[in-house]
Amino acid sequence: MDFKTILKEVYTDLLQTKSNGQPASYIPELANIDPDKFGMHYCSVNGEHYGLGDHQEKFSVQSIIKVISLCLAFKTEGVKIWKRVGVEPSGTPFNSLVQLEHEQGIPRNPFINAGAIVICDILLSQLDKPKEEFLNFVNQLALNSTIQYNPKIAASEKDHGYRNAALINMMKSFGNIENPIEDVLDFYYDICSIEMTCEELAQTFQLFANNGCIPSSKERVITTSQSKRINAIMQLCGFYDEAGEFSFKVGLPGKSGVGGGIVAIHPGEYTVAVWSPRLNKKGNSYKGIQALEMLTTKSELSIF
Amino acid sequence: MDFKTILKEVYTDLLQTKSNGQPASYIPELANIDPDKFGMHYCSVNGEHYGLGDHQEKFSVQSIIKVISLCLAFKTEGVKIWKRVGVEPSGTPFNSLVQLEHEQGIPRNPFINAGAIVICDILLSQLDKPKEEFLNFVNQLALNSTIQYNPKIAASEKDHGYRNAALINMMKSFGNIENPIEDVLDFYYDICSIEMTCEELAQTFQLFANNGCIPSSKERVITTSQSKRINAIMQLCGFYDEAGEFSFKVGLPGKSGVGGGIVAIHPGEYTVAVWSPRLNKKGNSYKGIQALEMLTTKSELSIF
Amino acid sequence: MDFKTILKEVYTDLLQTKSNGQPASYIPELANIDPDKFGMHYCSVNGEHYGLGDHQEKFSVQSIIKVISLCLAFKTEGVKIWKRVGVEPSGTPFNSLVQLEHEQGIPRNPFINAGAIVICDILLSQLDKPKEEFLNFVNQLALNSTIQYNPKIAASEKDHGYRNAALINMMKSFGNIENPIEDVLDFYYDICSIEMTCEELAQTFQLFANNGCIPSSKERVITTSQSKRINAIMQLCGFYDEAGEFSFKVGLPGKSGVGGGIVAIHPGEYTVAVWSPRLNKKGNSYKGIQALEMLTTKSELSIF
Amino acid sequence: MDFKTILKEVYTDLLQTKSNGQPASYIPELANIDPDKFGMHYCSVNGEHYGLGDHQEKFSVQSIIKVISLCLAFKTEGVKIWKRVGVEPSGTPFNSLVQLEHEQGIPRNPFINAGAIVICDILLSQLDKPKEEFLNFVNQLALNSTIQYNPKIAASEKDHGYRNAALINMMKSFGNIENPIEDVLDFYYDICSIEMTCEELAQTFQLFANNGCIPSSKERVITTSQSKRINAIMQLCGFYDEAGEFSFKVGLPGKSGVGGGIVAIHPGEYTVAVWSPRLNKKGNSYKGIQALEMLTTKSELSIF
Repeated sequence: MDFKTILKEVYTDLLQTKSNGQPASYIPELANIDPDKFGMHYCSVNGEHYGLGDHQEKFSVQSIIKVISLCLAFKTEGVKIWKRVGVEPSGTPFNSLVQLEHEQGIPRNPFINAGAIVICDILLSQLDKPKEEFLNFVNQLALNSTIQYNPKIAASEKDHGYRNAALINMMKSFGNIENPIEDVLDFYYDICSIEMTCEELAQTFQLFANNGCIPSSKERVITTSQSKRINAIMQLCGFYDEAGEFSFKVGLPGKSGVGGGIVAIHPGEYTVAVWSPRLNKKGNSYKGIQALEMLTTKSELSIF
Repeated sequence: MDFKTILKEVYTDLLQTKSNGQPASYIPELANIDPDKFGMHYCSVNGEHYGLGDHQEKFSVQSIIKVISLCLAFKTEGVKIWKRVGVEPSGTPFNSLVQLEHEQGIPRNPFINAGAIVICDILLSQLDKPKEEFLNFVNQLALNSTIQYNPKIAASEKDHGYRNAALINMMKSFGNIENPIEDVLDFYYDICSIEMTCEELAQTFQLFANNGCIPSSKERVITTSQSKRINAIMQLCGFYDEAGEFSFKVGLPGKSGVGGGIVAIHPGEYTVAVWSPRLNKKGNSYKGIQALEMLTTKSELSIF
Repeated sequence: MDFKTILKEVYTDLLQTKSNGQPASYIPELANIDPDKFGMHYCSVNGEHYGLGDHQEKFSVQSIIKVISLCLAFKTEGVKIWKRVGVEPSGTPFNSLVQLEHEQGIPRNPFINAGAIVICDILLSQLDKPKEEFLNFVNQLALNSTIQYNPKIAASEKDHGYRNAALINMMKSFGNIENPIEDVLDFYYDICSIEMTCEELAQTFQLFANNGCIPSSKERVITTSQSKRINAIMQLCGFYDEAGEFSFKVGLPGKSGVGGGIVAIHPGEYTVAVWSPRLNKKGNSYKGIQALEMLTTKSELSIF
Repeated sequence: MDFKTILKEVYTDLLQTKSNGQPASYIPELANIDPDKFGMHYCSVNGEHYGLGDHQEKFSVQSIIKVISLCLAFKTEGVKIWKRVGVEPSGTPFNSLVQLEHEQGIPRNPFINAGAIVICDILLSQLDKPKEEFLNFVNQLALNSTIQYNPKIAASEKDHGYRNAALINMMKSFGNIENPIEDVLDFYYDICSIEMTCEELAQTFQLFANNGCIPSSKERVITTSQSKRINAIMQLCGFYDEAGEFSFKVGLPGKSGVGGGIVAIHPGEYTVAVWSPRLNKKGNSYKGIQALEMLTTKSELSIF
């Protein structure tokens, strides 16, 4: 059975399935989305595209963007970034302060909130016009120029961001934040507010399926080694404290966001993005994980 | 550059490198090994073999065997085992009681001591002659009939095993141990005492590089899905609290033991076993990790 | 209003009050007790006695005995015991392994299970016939010679004692247990199985109300300083993770047991023992705490 | 030997003793104090006063003031405050976030930083002119009108207060802070910056030695029950994670501050304040604890 047929089967099956989860409700902008939106977009490194359902509708990518901010920081700063953030799974919820206290302000990995905030701090120190340059980088990867921040989402998250304020103050107390707290949080909320379609997400992540080069343009963005290492971190840390479960069921590196998006990468083969806003208890898209599990089970193809 | 040339380069480089670590010293039998032993053995799914240094010398595989006991339990009991042990990385040292207490006696994964002990309990309930049948299973995978337990190692570990006794009593208090504590611990120390050469290890793990079939004999041991899932657990949990680091540097599923052995798997390609008794602070072979990092860096081949 | 009148009021009020808790059920021998038993016994340092309800009925004193084993260890070994057990409140449930792991096998205080087990280990090393000598010591303090161990209770607790086995193995792994694990646990379960009446308990604790001397016989058992220090530990650690609450409400040093007994001490004034088997969620006698709170509130007398 | 003679002996002994600790150095204003200052002031409920050394020199009382803010909140709000802060010892350092996360934003007690910040939030909601009214309350207890805030100390602490900012943001995320974060922290740093002499401190705490009445003026400030309960909290929580040790050695309720001050209360008898800026590892005055231990040991008088 070819891959497109499998994708279609998975989509059709799940379209009829009732999803139990609830969409993220902590900010009104996310709660207002139709919870039954469902889109998938597949993009092979050979340039094949295949989209289904709401795959061309924009949604808030949220934590998925943390892979891209890590990518830009790793590209510009190199291995120095690993002095300020680790590469180990956290084993605890995404916004836990406990480990941060035990481990002297060094976050476990760049995908938990604390780690992503440190990456933002690194970018702020490095870039001249962080907000503009970061968006340019995203649009470069997406071969697109229409991707934008959503200021309403950013403002709304900031208003409820006491937990993140606690995290950054904690890290500042350990000397692991260089820039003013307000500036770092503003930049963090900005990048999390970016909106993309499944199609754009699948395109943006193509470089991780192709050793650091954008396949269509042959443009090298990061080294092979950097690309492999970012995939490794996604594999171990991409799904909060459900990373093991995802790895076990799906067997691909990937990253989820509370907007209901998930992107997964089969290195050398393809990227795939799924969007379904209802989340499971661990904060990952309920139907998104189901879709990817069905995909790798039916195709019997994964990195393992 | 072909793979054998790379292997030889890695071996030659590291042979001349001084390793900083110390071998495991908590039992005399392990402390008496020459700490500068160094062997590597590569085995492709096509039947190519290539060994270097002390690759045909027996050593204590210790925790590496936990992959094989998991394999046998998964094969005989199926998905029921996941009610009694998780698949998430622990983020804490291999013998920690803390998580066990917080999580009601369910170990995080089958490779930390607590999880491996639960797997032993499952096998004890399932097998008629556990000790004999388990050894037969190992010899079947290794295409060999000379692999044995080392009763001295087993006895010595048991004498110092207060921490493991604490773990199993804790799990018993939560109802997650069925058999008598003494029997489970005896079986656990027996299987950890098995001795193999790098060559035997690389052979034994071939099925995980080949979707659950032993390549040379075409014998199916477990399903494709089970094989992929065991690889996924190795990827996330195979190196105690250094799993992220190993995944980041090496990019292959694998498992280490305090005897200084490491085995790694490139699904669809090969298995490789390394032995060097000096350990780093996290309890993994110092030179073993270096060797595998050099191997995947030079070959630019990993699952990512 | 004189103290006896207050005692009678408290007793009468509470006799009519329904208690919400449940008696300890983890061993059949404790579960079989009539849960509505209720006794109080007051004993002043001047020799005044006043008993109410079931104050002359024997019950299992359980953890209350840990004050007496501490007293004997402190008397015989002096300040050396504080190298092996701390004097800080634990802030966690009585049988937590977490702190023990973080604090290298040194229990927080002698009243949590781990600490009481260490005290038993100290007594085993110190006494020739521990079981006999300990009982003699209790009978000496109680001015009585009929107090006994209950072997059924001891055996029954041992059969369910996996959590305590975990604790002692953990401490043994850190080198904080000298004697064979079995022997220490046997002695621990023996002393916890002792049965006394409220009257006997109130008498036994008289020395702590009188700077270390038994008031009626003028016999000095421990020094003034030792007596004050044992009271201080009761104040901070006598009620598991409800110590602050008890101190706040009652304002006296004291100790509870899962048999439903509580004994409290007003230094220079009196001791009082209460027995009511229904326990609150923290494992302390529901009505016992109420009784003592009413007593010190009505009398407006406490150490504070 | 009378109490004054004992006081003089203690003072003379310790004056000649070298203290090993270091004064608090995290803010320049505290680091600039002569570390060998040493003062003691005793004040009985009968109006006897006795001062030694630097007992009339002002110093920063820091956390000692948290007893007074608790007193004012308890007086004005009553038992409602216990919904927002507990009365249990924390068993962890004074500024730990770990427990706060586990316990849903409810601090363990009003003397750890998080708890004191909640009390400040309660006072801000309750008082019309918090800063002015609070100072009036302190001066009322001290029978004095010259006690002041030190704005330099307050500003300096705020500049380094990332850990406290983390704590308050965390509690806000759990809904346990009503007022704007900035306002609460400003008030918190203000009250901690108050400066008093040993004499003023001993006087200010007289009400706790006298069931809630200021002895000299007979003015009732809080009820007997409230006074006893505040003493109980001091006993269990007054010295961070050294509360058990202090209770064990000294046997009196008390409170310390990083400025090197300690005040202790013998209910019905006296208050005593000691000042010596060198701190032990737990953040309590090294010589201050020694002085109080000698005092209660020589006098053989404590609450136990």
